[in-house]
Amino acid sequence: MSVTAAQGFLASGVTAGIKESGDPDLALVVNRGPSRAAAGVFTSNRVQAAPVRWSRHALADGRLSAVVLNSGGANACTGPGGTEDAREMAERTARAVDAVPGEVAVCSTGLIGIRLPMDRVTDGIAAAAERLSPEGGEEAAVAIKTTDSVHKTAAAAGADWTVGGMAKGAGMLAPGLATMLVVLTTDADVSADVLDSALREAVRTTFDRVDSDGCMSTNDTVLLLASGASRVTPDPADLTAAVHAVCQDLARQLVADAEGASKEIEVEVVGAASEADAVEVGRSIARNNLLKCALHGEDPNWGRVLSAIGTTSARFDPDLLDVAINGVWVCRDGSEGEPRDKVDLSDRRITVTVDLRSGDSRATIWTNDLTAEYVHENSAYSS
Amino acid sequence: MSVTAAQGFLASGVTAGIKESGDPDLALVVNRGPSRAAAGVFTSNRVQAAPVRWSRHALADGRLSAVVLNSGGANACTGPGGTEDAREMAERTARAVDAVPGEVAVCSTGLIGIRLPMDRVTDGIAAAAERLSPEGGEEAAVAIKTTDSVHKTAAAAGADWTVGGMAKGAGMLAPGLATMLVVLTTDADVSADVLDSALREAVRTTFDRVDSDGCMSTNDTVLLLASGASRVTPDPADLTAAVHAVCQDLARQLVADAEGASKEIEVEVVGAASEADAVEVGRSIARNNLLKCALHGEDPNWGRVLSAIGTTSARFDPDLLDVAINGVWVCRDGSEGEPRDKVDLSDRRITVTVDLRSGDSRATIWTNDLTAEYVHENSAYSS
Repeated sequence: MSVTAAQGFLASGVTAGIKESGDPDLALVVNRGPSRAAAGVFTSNRVQAAPVRWSRHALADGRLSAVVLNSGGANACTGPGGTEDAREMAERTARAVDAVPGEVAVCSTGLIGIRLPMDRVTDGIAAAAERLSPEGGEEAAVAIKTTDSVHKTAAAAGADWTVGGMAKGAGMLAPGLATMLVVLTTDADVSADVLDSALREAVRTTFDRVDSDGCMSTNDTVLLLASGASRVTPDPADLTAAVHAVCQDLARQLVADAEGASKEIEVEVVGAASEADAVEVGRSIARNNLLKCALHGEDPNWGRVLSAIGTTSARFDPDLLDVAINGVWVCRDGSEGEPRDKVDLSDRRITVTVDLRSGDSRATIWTNDLTAEYVHENSAYSS
Repeated sequence: MSVTAAQGFLASGVTAGIKESGDPDLALVVNRGPSRAAAGVFTSNRVQAAPVRWSRHALADGRLSAVVLNSGGANACTGPGGTEDAREMAERTARAVDAVPGEVAVCSTGLIGIRLPMDRVTDGIAAAAERLSPEGGEEAAVAIKTTDSVHKTAAAAGADWTVGGMAKGAGMLAPGLATMLVVLTTDADVSADVLDSALREAVRTTFDRVDSDGCMSTNDTVLLLASGASRVTPDPADLTAAVHAVCQDLARQLVADAEGASKEIEVEVVGAASEADAVEVGRSIARNNLLKCALHGEDPNWGRVLSAIGTTSARFDPDLLDVAINGVWVCRDGSEGEPRDKVDLSDRRITVTVDLRSGDSRATIWTNDLTAEYVHENSAYSS
């Protein structure tokens, strides 16, 4: 149920002292092979942290031997010194696990704009390398937590092969430590190209559909490493399905753990002329602060849904829009439908369904409500 | 200092009983001429309220004799019945003030999706017509308030001619009654084309640059009516300057009155390759919930500014970005600049300055912080 669920992987987590709290803050994931095939996707933010730039470069040849991750500092917007720090983390890790630096990915999360305490980081890497174990997946997941209330792991089994994973973050709704880091592993024996396709397809409809507060991190990273240790080469479609299952599981855990949130909201757009239209409409609804406040207050305010839809370029006729909240079609043909007092919003999970009545495409975006706690946690201290 | 500051205009405001509170909720502005030239700009939301659709149509020939405005109900997403209601408001007003319905604009604000109580509205129109007066500008401004804490009026004087105006709304930060309505008047003797150019130029850099919470209304309307009563035809540039001054004054009043907000934030983008780039960057910063929370907490968190800039398509080099908060350049060359503890954020007004170092264009966006009060006011009751 973690990155060490798949054969051929070791992991560990330690307290390096990067965080002032004394909580674990440095993790390693090592691929013992025989394969070193890997793929990754990174934030589309144009302001990219030094470790993202490094890892992108390391992945260019489709191979990774290890990943070093730290919480307690994002190493973003840290200038040439930060670039050196990311490189040094890779080099120290390579030395400790007998790999080459160009095959080590680096992931960091925490406050933007502050240099990492590199003496502690390098000591931490040495200590983590000592603890590497085939049972280390759980402690690695713990060490990458920032404001996460629980650590997040998942796994999916194929026929004689496995996909495992861990994640940190709560979309961007976590108070400011605004990063999603995900490491996935598999013991399937597949090429980097197959991994890349499987990962992109899985991320496109899972992590890319989580939009808790519309804020995009400088550090988001999702990596997939394959050891080949099972000696099984699955059908690419089966691999994609398993990677998708793990990503979906972790994505739901992120939304469920979004700090400050009291509702998990699924925005389901159907009847769209294209998937792009459905995603645009879903995202505009998921990002609408007025609607997120209304749902927090358990008010089925469909007018705010229509206002949000109206800001998009999707194909629709305003007089032919239908909106259901928790299954009650409160808006029909762009105006009042069933009575809004039929809607029960007392549960933590809420579904908003929009039928654009313009085609057969659909998409689901997961988000959270906007709460006073969110404001408090993101304003009460620097993060 | 209101819509009756210009000669040739009458106005009034009454309690029609549309609002449950018993506060004034219906206003008239009447142009007694001799000219009836007019111009308008409307929400770019594709879901448009019935009165917006009606007024757009009424303005097609560049003439308006009167404007009828109500608070207490937006008449948006109300189907064919709502369309009939808007038409009836124009017809009743035309009859009461001796005009033709096609020269009467209609503006409504309040909850989306609910039909107006038309019996009260029509009685209110008759009562308001009785009260029309050259001193009625203030009471008209009061009658269009929703959650505004104060009514908003402004005026600018030319040489023997005047521009006056009134506004309601607090961007979209007002708790849910999410509409900006503005009526401007002038006694200058100018054509509808000249009015249209002056209005568009003025709105582009004032109301269009207010972005308190990124939510766009279905009802936003800005109208400019000219009576020609001064018999003066000013230079178009002078007229534009006066209209701009009134719009800027009213726009600042909207931001200052944004309910739930504790800070007025000016996002100033300089060094942009184009004005469009500057606006895109300014808006992305103004809409970033994490930054708005940080500024609420008086935390000069420039990392969140850079994260927001990174989501745009503007021209910039991430390693050459400079950010100042209240004049302190906390970010230089995309990394740490002057110490953040030099920044004093205790005042209500905050300026965030971004230098993209990519050209000579600039733009300013006005916004507010994100507060627990905003969440409370937008979640505690249906609006």
